Amino acid sequence: MFSDKEFLQRIVGRLCDEASYAQLYHYAYRDVPMPSVTELEDILELLRGVLFPGYFGSSEVNAVTMPFYIGSTVTEIYKRLTEQVKRGFCFDCSGEQKVCGDCERKAIHVVKQFLEMLPDIRRFLATDVEAAYYGDPAAKNKGETIFCYPSILALFHHRVAHALLKLGVPLIPRIISEMAHSKTGIDIHPGATIGEYFFIDHGTGTVIGETCIIGKNVRLYQGVTLGAKSFPKDEYGNPIKGIPRHPIVEDDVIIYSGATVLGRITIGRGAVIGGNVWVTEDVPAGQKILQTQPRDVTFDQGAGI
Amino acid sequence: MFSDKEFLQRIVGRLCDEASYAQLYHYAYRDVPMPSVTELEDILELLRGVLFPGYFGSSEVNAVTMPFYIGSTVTEIYKRLTEQVKRGFCFDCSGEQKVCGDCERKAIHVVKQFLEMLPDIRRFLATDVEAAYYGDPAAKNKGETIFCYPSILALFHHRVAHALLKLGVPLIPRIISEMAHSKTGIDIHPGATIGEYFFIDHGTGTVIGETCIIGKNVRLYQGVTLGAKSFPKDEYGNPIKGIPRHPIVEDDVIIYSGATVLGRITIGRGAVIGGNVWVTEDVPAGQKILQTQPRDVTFDQGAGI
Amino acid sequence: MFSDKEFLQRIVGRLCDEASYAQLYHYAYRDVPMPSVTELEDILELLRGVLFPGYFGSSEVNAVTMPFYIGSTVTEIYKRLTEQVKRGFCFDCSGEQKVCGDCERKAIHVVKQFLEMLPDIRRFLATDVEAAYYGDPAAKNKGETIFCYPSILALFHHRVAHALLKLGVPLIPRIISEMAHSKTGIDIHPGATIGEYFFIDHGTGTVIGETCIIGKNVRLYQGVTLGAKSFPKDEYGNPIKGIPRHPIVEDDVIIYSGATVLGRITIGRGAVIGGNVWVTEDVPAGQKILQTQPRDVTFDQGAGI
Amino acid sequence: MFSDKEFLQRIVGRLCDEASYAQLYHYAYRDVPMPSVTELEDILELLRGVLFPGYFGSSEVNAVTMPFYIGSTVTEIYKRLTEQVKRGFCFDCSGEQKVCGDCERKAIHVVKQFLEMLPDIRRFLATDVEAAYYGDPAAKNKGETIFCYPSILALFHHRVAHALLKLGVPLIPRIISEMAHSKTGIDIHPGATIGEYFFIDHGTGTVIGETCIIGKNVRLYQGVTLGAKSFPKDEYGNPIKGIPRHPIVEDDVIIYSGATVLGRITIGRGAVIGGNVWVTEDVPAGQKILQTQPRDVTFDQGAGI
Amino acid sequence: MFSDKEFLQRIVGRLCDEASYAQLYHYAYRDVPMPSVTELEDILELLRGVLFPGYFGSSEVNAVTMPFYIGSTVTEIYKRLTEQVKRGFCFDCSGEQKVCGDCERKAIHVVKQFLEMLPDIRRFLATDVEAAYYGDPAAKNKGETIFCYPSILALFHHRVAHALLKLGVPLIPRIISEMAHSKTGIDIHPGATIGEYFFIDHGTGTVIGETCIIGKNVRLYQGVTLGAKSFPKDEYGNPIKGIPRHPIVEDDVIIYSGATVLGRITIGRGAVIGGNVWVTEDVPAGQKILQTQPRDVTFDQGAGI
Amino acid sequence: MFSDKEFLQRIVGRLCDEASYAQLYHYAYRDVPMPSVTELEDILELLRGVLFPGYFGSSEVNAVTMPFYIGSTVTEIYKRLTEQVKRGFCFDCSGEQKVCGDCERKAIHVVKQFLEMLPDIRRFLATDVEAAYYGDPAAKNKGETIFCYPSILALFHHRVAHALLKLGVPLIPRIISEMAHSKTGIDIHPGATIGEYFFIDHGTGTVIGETCIIGKNVRLYQGVTLGAKSFPKDEYGNPIKGIPRHPIVEDDVIIYSGATVLGRITIGRGAVIGGNVWVTEDVPAGQKILQTQPRDVTFDQGAGI
Repeated sequence: MFSDKEFLQRIVGRLCDEASYAQLYHYAYRDVPMPSVTELEDILELLRGVLFPGYFGSSEVNAVTMPFYIGSTVTEIYKRLTEQVKRGFCFDCSGEQKVCGDCERKAIHVVKQFLEMLPDIRRFLATDVEAAYYGDPAAKNKGETIFCYPSILALFHHRVAHALLKLGVPLIPRIISEMAHSKTGIDIHPGATIGEYFFIDHGTGTVIGETCIIGKNVRLYQGVTLGAKSFPKDEYGNPIKGIPRHPIVEDDVIIYSGATVLGRITIGRGAVIGGNVWVTEDVPAGQKILQTQPRDVTFDQGAGI
Repeated sequence: MFSDKEFLQRIVGRLCDEASYAQLYHYAYRDVPMPSVTELEDILELLRGVLFPGYFGSSEVNAVTMPFYIGSTVTEIYKRLTEQVKRGFCFDCSGEQKVCGDCERKAIHVVKQFLEMLPDIRRFLATDVEAAYYGDPAAKNKGETIFCYPSILALFHHRVAHALLKLGVPLIPRIISEMAHSKTGIDIHPGATIGEYFFIDHGTGTVIGETCIIGKNVRLYQGVTLGAKSFPKDEYGNPIKGIPRHPIVEDDVIIYSGATVLGRITIGRGAVIGGNVWVTEDVPAGQKILQTQPRDVTFDQGAGI
Repeated sequence: MFSDKEFLQRIVGRLCDEASYAQLYHYAYRDVPMPSVTELEDILELLRGVLFPGYFGSSEVNAVTMPFYIGSTVTEIYKRLTEQVKRGFCFDCSGEQKVCGDCERKAIHVVKQFLEMLPDIRRFLATDVEAAYYGDPAAKNKGETIFCYPSILALFHHRVAHALLKLGVPLIPRIISEMAHSKTGIDIHPGATIGEYFFIDHGTGTVIGETCIIGKNVRLYQGVTLGAKSFPKDEYGNPIKGIPRHPIVEDDVIIYSGATVLGRITIGRGAVIGGNVWVTEDVPAGQKILQTQPRDVTFDQGAGI
Repeated sequence: MFSDKEFLQRIVGRLCDEASYAQLYHYAYRDVPMPSVTELEDILELLRGVLFPGYFGSSEVNAVTMPFYIGSTVTEIYKRLTEQVKRGFCFDCSGEQKVCGDCERKAIHVVKQFLEMLPDIRRFLATDVEAAYYGDPAAKNKGETIFCYPSILALFHHRVAHALLKLGVPLIPRIISEMAHSKTGIDIHPGATIGEYFFIDHGTGTVIGETCIIGKNVRLYQGVTLGAKSFPKDEYGNPIKGIPRHPIVEDDVIIYSGATVLGRITIGRGAVIGGNVWVTEDVPAGQKILQTQPRDVTFDQGAGI
Repeated sequence: MFSDKEFLQRIVGRLCDEASYAQLYHYAYRDVPMPSVTELEDILELLRGVLFPGYFGSSEVNAVTMPFYIGSTVTEIYKRLTEQVKRGFCFDCSGEQKVCGDCERKAIHVVKQFLEMLPDIRRFLATDVEAAYYGDPAAKNKGETIFCYPSILALFHHRVAHALLKLGVPLIPRIISEMAHSKTGIDIHPGATIGEYFFIDHGTGTVIGETCIIGKNVRLYQGVTLGAKSFPKDEYGNPIKGIPRHPIVEDDVIIYSGATVLGRITIGRGAVIGGNVWVTEDVPAGQKILQTQPRDVTFDQGAGI
Repeated sequence: MFSDKEFLQRIVGRLCDEASYAQLYHYAYRDVPMPSVTELEDILELLRGVLFPGYFGSSEVNAVTMPFYIGSTVTEIYKRLTEQVKRGFCFDCSGEQKVCGDCERKAIHVVKQFLEMLPDIRRFLATDVEAAYYGDPAAKNKGETIFCYPSILALFHHRVAHALLKLGVPLIPRIISEMAHSKTGIDIHPGATIGEYFFIDHGTGTVIGETCIIGKNVRLYQGVTLGAKSFPKDEYGNPIKGIPRHPIVEDDVIIYSGATVLGRITIGRGAVIGGNVWVTEDVPAGQKILQTQPRDVTFDQGAGI
């Protein structure tokens, strides 16, 4: 027992040594806690109900009850999202001289602008549903794509996160993106600009970088990377943030599974990139690029590769 | 405050405009709500306890209590799954002339048939456990593969979803598949036919398309695509649904990570497909296919690729 | 109704037939249940709060309350983790002659050693945070990487799981790894040895095998496989467990997305492996390896690939 | 172990013997389950939010959001209460020849009528709040009585339960009354008729019987019984149901703690009944009734009574 | 901020001073925690489902599924109640020399005996349901009394708690009684012996002491006390425990609301005790006792009592 | 359907009519919501763990972990209670000119003072435990009274609520009292002053009014009222608040069940008040007061009273 006592005190003492925790410690500025991931999950669920009424949220919304349902849900989103956005601003401004009222005022302002954008977000998502239905022969009807396609889930998160990022909200957009990344395996940076009628089939492992610009009617498959080739560093060796370094993908492009497209290059309108290829230079409009033929080899049975 | 009032009313008004929501709105036919994903998750958890007794569900089931446990759990599954299957039928038949009693009757009929299939599903899963244990040197014992291998989780979901799909249940099989896809990154369409002793190591990013036919004792790795090359459209530009368009993989085939196999081709018995290769034509039995050698290049230190 | 009665009794009877369940049944040895995944999730969440105070767990921990918070949380971890580790030992020793007190004693011993390692684990994670911040131009600040980067989540799980594995704990490390795999798509076997300043960008589909040895300051991208080429089997056809069969990756190596590195080969210090390449032989220090150029082909518009 | 096996089987066998359970078994007619007490608790909570907006339910309802909040909450009450009322009807009609559609139709009809009564119920409750505030010198303001006085809680339940009972709903009103009884110790039978401005101070142990008729502006204290003196039985010894057998209490009466008023007698307008008295005959208007003086006795110190 | 720091440390220091907590501190003997009230609530709910099948627990139990339901529920009760009973024994034996295995063994033994008593407990409860139905003209049917009468709830708790007390279980019976006391206001000490066909109408405030013996077919109302008159103390001033000091109530007695019956006296068969009376001496069989007439007084209008 | 549409709109319209809700509507001043009863329940549970360590809260607190446990729990109470107290102040000041920062500042100040009082509250509760153990022959040990006696629960709530009331906190003390009232049936106004060694046996229905002053070592039983005889009203008919109007009970008094003691009278030291009596005048020290003998009457068998 005695040694046990020393044991716990020693461990706790070591873990409370400032040298141990300093690098990984967040000092809550003016007692504003970190944004809550659980709260944001709830808020996204409320937003899903607003954007896709009847599919999510209250199941028996109809023409009469629509205003009640949308009204009360938007009110709740307004309040709860404002709190989270405020926390995002506070996280970002920690340690500076601003007073916290600023963060709250900015949050209210930003969330109002965001709510004004909801009809547009809904309009874009309607085109994504079209794209999913027409882009996948396995889709039985549009409702199925709304209800269970990872592409629609990822784009719902992305279009919300992108709108918030454009409004200058820190941290929250990234959290919203990571939620979708965790659930679908699709990693779209909230900074990416994506046009209408976008579809990612299967999607696991697909990555769309921060400065990508994607046109209309583009279709990707799983495991596609739209990434950066390399990134310049400043004189202190820090990566320079915010430089355009990801591809521009024009309208009507298809990129098959596992393809890697790197750098600020342009994939021209209507081009098709085959599976597993590695593209680091511009592709002209209409061109199709395939992997070279694999080498065929016959081994003895029983041996591995 | 006054502007605030106008603000909320305006937003709600815009979101309640039928033109805004029409494309993304689900009208609950005869007040039958959408299937509940949470309910289906619970039901799958109950099924897991029935199929793998002692590993999941009640932890101290034994020879005496087995009938109590299986009996009460199957009873609960029967009831709760019937409700969800009914909702699936109602979702599908929305807007038609059938009366809802039909959906309930069909659901009861189908769930009974499904329950009759459980012993067979369990038998297949036992072979999958064997395959996982013998296919992965890192597996310490079979129990470990049952308890925490994504392959077993994905196949448990698939074999259940496939059975329901074969019985004509709409929507639900797809939801069940997507649950496993979200958790494991393995995307098996419920339509795919998969033989005994199947194993997918690691699994993230592996995709198995709707019309795949996979033989016995097949092993895949992560990032493998068994996909469609292209798909014909009808005169209106809609993809034609249900045409065989995915590979046939015969017994004893191994396909390494990142390989892409596309189209209604046949990978012959005992063939081995190397990592990251792109296969769009038949592979004879016993053949091994590898990627061509990469180009080796030395760059200056410090530069990117 | 009568047939219904027969129906349930028949199904239950078939599922309770020992021949049906024998292969998939876990007999709880001395009534010790399986480890609880939910419990382990809670414990990992408590550990996250201890290792990254202020980011997770109690949000307003400060210099005064740090000992209260760390003290009470470590006490709770001590107790709850010991219970789970004990279950892990019991799972492993099922059917043998040992008495269960052994498992409890071993669990207490092991968890104490594990808690002693927490300051070191924290120190390693601090370097991983550095690596994430400097390795990703999209990272706005270090806090963002702690709070929402999958790489940090995966490494937090890995460094904990690896410590427990080294201490001889069965099953639990694998469960902890799979939690992170499920959430991030990054599959790091708890046996892998990973040096300081490690970063995996995006990460989905990346696999790091059981016997990998990774040096300092290594950066991977999504879809990278550090796998085994093949594995020897014993005279009965069982895979031989525990043989070194995964790559050694030396300091300062970068491996781009989709690359596959197989077998007990060495990727020399500072080497760069390009995306989608397939490497099965040693790579000298400083070398860069790229995929061969894809074949460019122009097809008619409208056709698939 | 063997005896254990026999043990469980024996117990279960005995408990499954129909002779054992027949008296206490509810056969769910057409699979309609019992009303759910938890559901009814939720529904009452929703109703509280509608009747006392801002105190319960959404805390920041205002003139703009009132229609959203009331609209969505009433919609939800409509749906969920209808289900429970239907179960109440089904419970009552078990074993008869009616088809269940009847119960659903009746439930919808009745709940609509009930919802029409909400403004009146609210109006009555507003008078009860007045009565509580003016009747208790300890009440600091009206809000306090709404938020935490057992009298208001009991009357809220009663006025709802009474309305449902008047509409012919079986079982549910009684459940709603018992909820309040359990929380407040005030037992008002849903059949009792209670006028405006009613207040029960403290309330624990107060009982108001099924056929009571209580006027306006009546005040009771804890432990008051308005009960039946005795009840006639029919030729088979069964109590005859529904006969008026509880007191009529006219306007402006006060009844102090512990008083017992039994039988179909009338307590006349403005009468005052003192604490702990036993009243079985009419009391004229304006009269005051007190307990006779207690006998004073001095005992030796140390002895009990 | 500085004073804040001192503040928390000072408060915590004072509360951690052994002199402060010593009287109110429970040292968990051999790390066995206190019984869990929440667990016991769950266990009682499971028991309710077993004793009143169809009313509580699974709602669609029928002749086929009864053994599944009862079997799995009894198994769960067996396990979970044993754990709680063990904690009860450990609580009681804290600080003594016994080893904990004893408590576990005793718990298993006792719970088995308790389960053997369930059919008898059920038989008694069936008579209590009869008594409630015939004793209350407001009862519409027997099902209503099972589902929502506080008398049945209190007797269900009492008959379970009494059985456990008779088997020598410490603490747990009292916790079970207090649960019912809290919900119903009926306080029956688990030591009281109560015959068949017992009914307490309304019940709030009724108290039945530890050494009461109550015959068959007895009916009480709310606010009845069957208490002790006084209790002898030993030479140190401690109350002597366990001496018979509460009333014996013979068959067919009725005691009306608010009556107080004190001491080891006998209320003879068929006697009737009126409301609010105070009885401290034997009452012969068949006798009826009423309160003396209250003094009637007319006061001026407007004055208080 | 059409009438349905009109129906919901009509109901909602009527309930949103300001004339309907005005009397029962709480306008959240500066968006500060009502205190949360659920939060307060959690906070009280945390306080219970601090005051009675080992009985409630963490079950294995010991000399080493006491500071961790007390420290982290007090920190949490500090924060969460401050929020609730702030809401209490805001509720009270609604509509006035103060700025909300005031309420927060006052809340912090008050909660700090409250925390300073915890050691004293604990000291008083330790005497109440003594009183319960020595006052009830059925109590097996002191731990049992801490763990499940309603008297201890009610006094724990009271001593906390009283401290907060003395510090000027509005609303919250009353909520805390009502929690205990609901659970135990004991209604102690937070304003009442109660000395050491206080015990209420059984307790249901006991009422202790706002201005009561109770000495040391007093014992009450169930159904005792310490109430007001009447209360003066001001010229507008409003009850005048805060006037001393409840009894003073001196040291060592015992009051038996159902007794009613009304008005600002004094029950002298060591007096004993018998059950069911009605006392409205001073009782000298040492006196014992009993009810007059009941009238005995013999009726015919079979008749009611």
